[in-house]
Amino acid sequence: MTQLRVCFIGDSITNGTGDTGFLGWPGWLCTAEVAAGHDLTDYNLGIRGDTSADLLPRWRAECVARLPASIHCAIVLNIGLNDATEQNGEIRVSLADSVRNLREILSGAKAMFPTLWVGPSAVDESKQPLVADTGERRDKRNGRTADYNLAFKTLAHELDVPYLDMLSKTINDPEWPALLSDGLHPLPAGHDRMAGHVGGWNAWRVLLDG
Amino acid sequence: MTQLRVCFIGDSITNGTGDTGFLGWPGWLCTAEVAAGHDLTDYNLGIRGDTSADLLPRWRAECVARLPASIHCAIVLNIGLNDATEQNGEIRVSLADSVRNLREILSGAKAMFPTLWVGPSAVDESKQPLVADTGERRDKRNGRTADYNLAFKTLAHELDVPYLDMLSKTINDPEWPALLSDGLHPLPAGHDRMAGHVGGWNAWRVLLDG
Repeated sequence: MTQLRVCFIGDSITNGTGDTGFLGWPGWLCTAEVAAGHDLTDYNLGIRGDTSADLLPRWRAECVARLPASIHCAIVLNIGLNDATEQNGEIRVSLADSVRNLREILSGAKAMFPTLWVGPSAVDESKQPLVADTGERRDKRNGRTADYNLAFKTLAHELDVPYLDMLSKTINDPEWPALLSDGLHPLPAGHDRMAGHVGGWNAWRVLLDG
Repeated sequence: MTQLRVCFIGDSITNGTGDTGFLGWPGWLCTAEVAAGHDLTDYNLGIRGDTSADLLPRWRAECVARLPASIHCAIVLNIGLNDATEQNGEIRVSLADSVRNLREILSGAKAMFPTLWVGPSAVDESKQPLVADTGERRDKRNGRTADYNLAFKTLAHELDVPYLDMLSKTINDPEWPALLSDGLHPLPAGHDRMAGHVGGWNAWRVLLDG
């Protein structure tokens, strides 16, 4: 049995928007690990609409408040999809800025705690663009996300941060579009599917199973 | 159908420590409201062990990052139980300091969004003290919590912030001790019980049903 406190940092997909059971994939993941005998604390720090630029000023204070330096803790990021999003005709965070923001965040995070990065997931392009309840018209395209995903993978390799290529896993999953509530946010079964990918990932297993 | 984004701010009981289903009472509450047709966003900002003194420097930045000023949002606090706790022979936050901290937090919060305050819950004294996994020996007594609860109620009345007397509801519930996992943290059914008290509270219902 391993005790572990985790800050899951991300956007609406980490928050679990669209999961009517209010777990998000981090909650599904933690529930499965506790059922397997581990003792996890789930700090869900997903914020709807967040980009890497939104994350930059908040991640450190939010993690420091939650993760005592004296015990086994980890940081898991799932960020980037909103960077690669066109909003009212403009890309929200350019690829260069996104990589720069994430380099700063990941360098700081891994200096504090074991840090993992879950890449962006695929959307159903036939349902794009979406209008957020805050009024913004946001358009996501898997081809554009793929450019970011490739750059994220390169950055993660350079920084020696484990990277889970969730885009490849979801875009190659013929069931994935049916697991989304609105072409973007996973339904409960979609969150469970994402949790399964993270739960079976070697970098995650090392945190729990040594 | 009402759309509402809520920051639930508190300690381990808000976080849902001990809820093997990883919802905490806010997740149970939101799940029930969504099943009833509402559209809620659950930002769970409970941190294990937090007192009002721990909350003071973080609540504002965490709420501002999550709650857009342009849409229907609310702040729900469930804090105070760790203030009224003896740790290694000392009270963690004196009653006077607790009231001063909460006056500052509540005054700031209600100036931004509708703000509700859920008071501390009862413990099973036969299981006290508890040793946290961070090593602290913490002792909670319902009589001491009752002193804080009374002062909190007075403060809430003065600030015109709705206050739910969760101590009275739980201490007068003969089933409550059996709904706790360790004499402090509710089991899933205990979180569901707390969610039912909040969900039936007029101040909460006004947020959703107008």
